[in-house]
Amino acid sequence: MHEELPQFSDVQAAMQRIAPYVHHTPVMQSSHLSKVLGMTVMFKCENLQKVGAFKARGACNAVFALDAKQVASGVVTHSSGNHAAALARAAALRGAPAYVVMPTNAPEVKKTAVRGFGGQIVECEPTLIAREREAKALMDKTGATLVHPYDDVWVIAGQGTAVLEMVDQCEQPEVYLAPVGGGGLLTGSALSVRALWPGTRVIGVEPLGADDAARGFRAGERVCGASPKTIADGLRGELSARTFSLMRRDVDEVLTVSEASIIEAMRLIWHHLKIVIEPSAAVPVAALLEGQVKADRAAVLLSGGNVDFSLLSSWFG
Amino acid sequence: MHEELPQFSDVQAAMQRIAPYVHHTPVMQSSHLSKVLGMTVMFKCENLQKVGAFKARGACNAVFALDAKQVASGVVTHSSGNHAAALARAAALRGAPAYVVMPTNAPEVKKTAVRGFGGQIVECEPTLIAREREAKALMDKTGATLVHPYDDVWVIAGQGTAVLEMVDQCEQPEVYLAPVGGGGLLTGSALSVRALWPGTRVIGVEPLGADDAARGFRAGERVCGASPKTIADGLRGELSARTFSLMRRDVDEVLTVSEASIIEAMRLIWHHLKIVIEPSAAVPVAALLEGQVKADRAAVLLSGGNVDFSLLSSWFG
Repeated sequence: MHEELPQFSDVQAAMQRIAPYVHHTPVMQSSHLSKVLGMTVMFKCENLQKVGAFKARGACNAVFALDAKQVASGVVTHSSGNHAAALARAAALRGAPAYVVMPTNAPEVKKTAVRGFGGQIVECEPTLIAREREAKALMDKTGATLVHPYDDVWVIAGQGTAVLEMVDQCEQPEVYLAPVGGGGLLTGSALSVRALWPGTRVIGVEPLGADDAARGFRAGERVCGASPKTIADGLRGELSARTFSLMRRDVDEVLTVSEASIIEAMRLIWHHLKIVIEPSAAVPVAALLEGQVKADRAAVLLSGGNVDFSLLSSWFG
Repeated sequence: MHEELPQFSDVQAAMQRIAPYVHHTPVMQSSHLSKVLGMTVMFKCENLQKVGAFKARGACNAVFALDAKQVASGVVTHSSGNHAAALARAAALRGAPAYVVMPTNAPEVKKTAVRGFGGQIVECEPTLIAREREAKALMDKTGATLVHPYDDVWVIAGQGTAVLEMVDQCEQPEVYLAPVGGGGLLTGSALSVRALWPGTRVIGVEPLGADDAARGFRAGERVCGASPKTIADGLRGELSARTFSLMRRDVDEVLTVSEASIIEAMRLIWHHLKIVIEPSAAVPVAALLEGQVKADRAAVLLSGGNVDFSLLSSWFG
């Protein structure tokens, strides 16, 4: 299945596989916030997910789909974000070694998270080429299976399970919004929306400073090698050929938002829902705040809540 | 009943009365946080309550206990904190006028919250005498019923309903911790703990800079007229004769914590539970963080989540 595109049945299988290992996260609403945003908005709180992000879903699905021999050899990835911690956790749950390639300049707090789950960090130069080369070397040496943060059928199917849960938690919305970085969450979500909420528009949102998905979506050709600049650190990746194909097939629209709107959207969520979300999670809310979406009822996936508190004063100060 | 002390049966009646108007808030846990605090800790999330604080419970109980004639004349209070917004909301739900006496220097954000629920603000000089005089004048003029933030049997009984919910949400803890300011939450909670979790110790926690309850508890005599100094703005009030009596009867211990611990506890909750709590809510967590409580299993009431975001840099900067 790894060479192909995932199907909705893969999302259903993922739900069965990961249910014991992830939270069934709540859907929240606030009448005040709906008033501010001009429509009823339902928020799927993946910031309250294990490891503080939806990434727990895809990582668990990939790891629990391994066979016994693969488990013994372990898994490897080259993310420095939420996926790294999610993969280390999933591997620990199955007793598999986890190798995480991280640049030498990765924040200490992220290394600590990976080590806290027993993951082994392998440092490399802070370039994409060095990361991929180091991951390849580790696979050759250990026989570990690569679990890419988003260019992976199991991972994409796992991310789609959040919407699967939502169907029992709220009414069908006119629009569903998720952030787009590498595209795993957006395209996995779209598989579920297409199957379960026919007629609902699927909208990806990204920062204007990291608008490769929006440009590629409009042009019909994937944009590579851009230099993203945004506080939404989870959305700095670029689509793979696989997630780009899925996006073109299943997503209705890709919007971009300003950094100022991201910060204001983050503040609004903290203030009205009393929950902590990271900048990347605020990006779809920013699109509503900017009045870019016309609807009476929207569903938004809040992707994560891992915040570097030393940055707060630069956001809200 | 207003001249007497509330009973557990009043808490049970309050639960019936207010259930349609308040959230059944979740109880959260985090294995990481339990590790940091050295025991299993269950958090009752009243920051996710209506108006962002447990105050919605007591205010609703007081307002929905009024008879038709009292409803027509309305309610009055002289709180400038969460109780003011909670009372305005409760009154609006019953179609009763709400008058809130606030000092001229009250923060604009708090006035906005009261007005948002249709409450009428009456300004006065920023002294306790002026506040009480103005409230009395309003009662004489309008016939409105005073709903004191904590020196009120209905309010105390209402605050006790949070623990009533917890009994179905988690195992019995060895200790139950709540913050203490005016004492309404602590003593209302204690009524429920005594009835439903016999053997559980009830601990009140307050900032060292507002330690009137702790000193009064030790001395056996109420401390009045202190000048509290703490970032926990919800805990600057002092006990009434009524809440002092209840505390002496039903509470096992009153602890004090430092301002630094309050900030660190607040940061820990934001970081590990991904929820926003205000400084007052962090106070019981600070006692656990300081190692003042010996237990394997604790329950903590997180009292509210109304934060002035302009202060963040002074806390976490």
